[in-house]
Amino acid sequence: MIGIFDSGIGGLTVVQALKSMLPEYDMIYFGDTARTPYGSKSAKSVMEYALQDTEFLISKGAKLIVVACNTASSIAMEALTEKFDIPVFEVITPAAEHAVLVSKKLRIGVIGTRATINSGIYEKKILKLNPDAKILSYPCPLLVSLVEEGWIKKPETFMIVKKYLHPLKVRQIDTLIMGCTHYPILKDTIQRKIGKQVKLIDSSITIAENVKNFLKSNPDFDLTMQKNSKICFYVSDITEQFKHTAKSILKTSICLEPVNL
Amino acid sequence: MIGIFDSGIGGLTVVQALKSMLPEYDMIYFGDTARTPYGSKSAKSVMEYALQDTEFLISKGAKLIVVACNTASSIAMEALTEKFDIPVFEVITPAAEHAVLVSKKLRIGVIGTRATINSGIYEKKILKLNPDAKILSYPCPLLVSLVEEGWIKKPETFMIVKKYLHPLKVRQIDTLIMGCTHYPILKDTIQRKIGKQVKLIDSSITIAENVKNFLKSNPDFDLTMQKNSKICFYVSDITEQFKHTAKSILKTSICLEPVNL
Repeated sequence: MIGIFDSGIGGLTVVQALKSMLPEYDMIYFGDTARTPYGSKSAKSVMEYALQDTEFLISKGAKLIVVACNTASSIAMEALTEKFDIPVFEVITPAAEHAVLVSKKLRIGVIGTRATINSGIYEKKILKLNPDAKILSYPCPLLVSLVEEGWIKKPETFMIVKKYLHPLKVRQIDTLIMGCTHYPILKDTIQRKIGKQVKLIDSSITIAENVKNFLKSNPDFDLTMQKNSKICFYVSDITEQFKHTAKSILKTSICLEPVNL
Repeated sequence: MIGIFDSGIGGLTVVQALKSMLPEYDMIYFGDTARTPYGSKSAKSVMEYALQDTEFLISKGAKLIVVACNTASSIAMEALTEKFDIPVFEVITPAAEHAVLVSKKLRIGVIGTRATINSGIYEKKILKLNPDAKILSYPCPLLVSLVEEGWIKKPETFMIVKKYLHPLKVRQIDTLIMGCTHYPILKDTIQRKIGKQVKLIDSSITIAENVKNFLKSNPDFDLTMQKNSKICFYVSDITEQFKHTAKSILKTSICLEPVNL
């Protein structure tokens, strides 16, 4: 079983990507909706939450963990791989690798939550891959709230996206990493505001590709995975808003199980 | 000592109002920044948090509790007064009473978080005071995020406030309750967008007046309160953003103590 967690709803874009690439695999999702958003919390708190989230998924039978949250990926990976003896995947590295691969001018923009951007993790990963790259990172904290509210096509959202992307646009990036799993939901608006010449990197797709490649090249491990196309969803707080937004991301109604961590 | 709690930063408007009306009283504030926002969480979770927050304040010496959060006030008051044997004040009743008092046409608007509006508590309180009142309530969930981000004077915030207030404006309310302790920070914008003929009710001021009146009419109880003008601030998660916004509300730097609930 593939275990996936996020602070709330954003990680469902990763579930969606995994579902389309690995449709037969059983999955279990945990959204920490009681403590969402992670992106404006301190590193210490995010670290604790990520450890608890992973423990919960393993207790439910997960054999492989996907950290479907850039904030948790940027802060907690070392602690997670140290503590748990199963494969743990994070969203940052595949997105950084893909950006370096497709960027022609090596002028790469990164947008994310305040916690992700403050961690400087994308800069570190990209510069390790290519020290000549020029990286421009900006936090876009309100985008998570706008997505959670379902304000996807509102003029106010267009204006806020435009304002956030302006400094990246004038600095002529040619590639933009959407460094938050909520952002692919605003992909069309982001592409329009940054300009169609800029390549968008969707970290939910790059991580799903990474997991797929890992399973393909580790057939013995792959044999231990259950494949009944079953997906279970757990959240730490159930709200109508979550059900509504989840339905619009996954294009299907889901049954949510509450859990106290 | 007066104990005050909120989901995060909004309750500081109540601290500010209490400070100006009762400058000599010792206070202790708890902001549950690790679990903020409450307004988009379920009633069950908010109830649990409110009980924990109150227990913490009492353990630190609070003799009187101010629930400086409309969401917690609307959901947890019964549980709080049942469990704790000290005076507990909530923000809803004083604001409802003041609105009924000043509204000439008895067309009263209420704005708040989704949880507060869904609870229907303002309607119940106002109709109990005057069954002829016409109440129009709307949730404005994004305003909390905008305030927490410090986007007080941005054009996007003006547009969002205008959009939220539009249905209340066309229905010609003459009084508007700001049913969330974050909203007084946007008071100028809200007044401008709803029109200057509409009376704004600031629940942070009405609750502070209520506490003041209680202490005045209970001199024996008042004698047990410490009065050294000391205020302590505790939060469940410390972030730079909180310090920054707190400073702009309280007009002074504060020292924050972290606490795990």
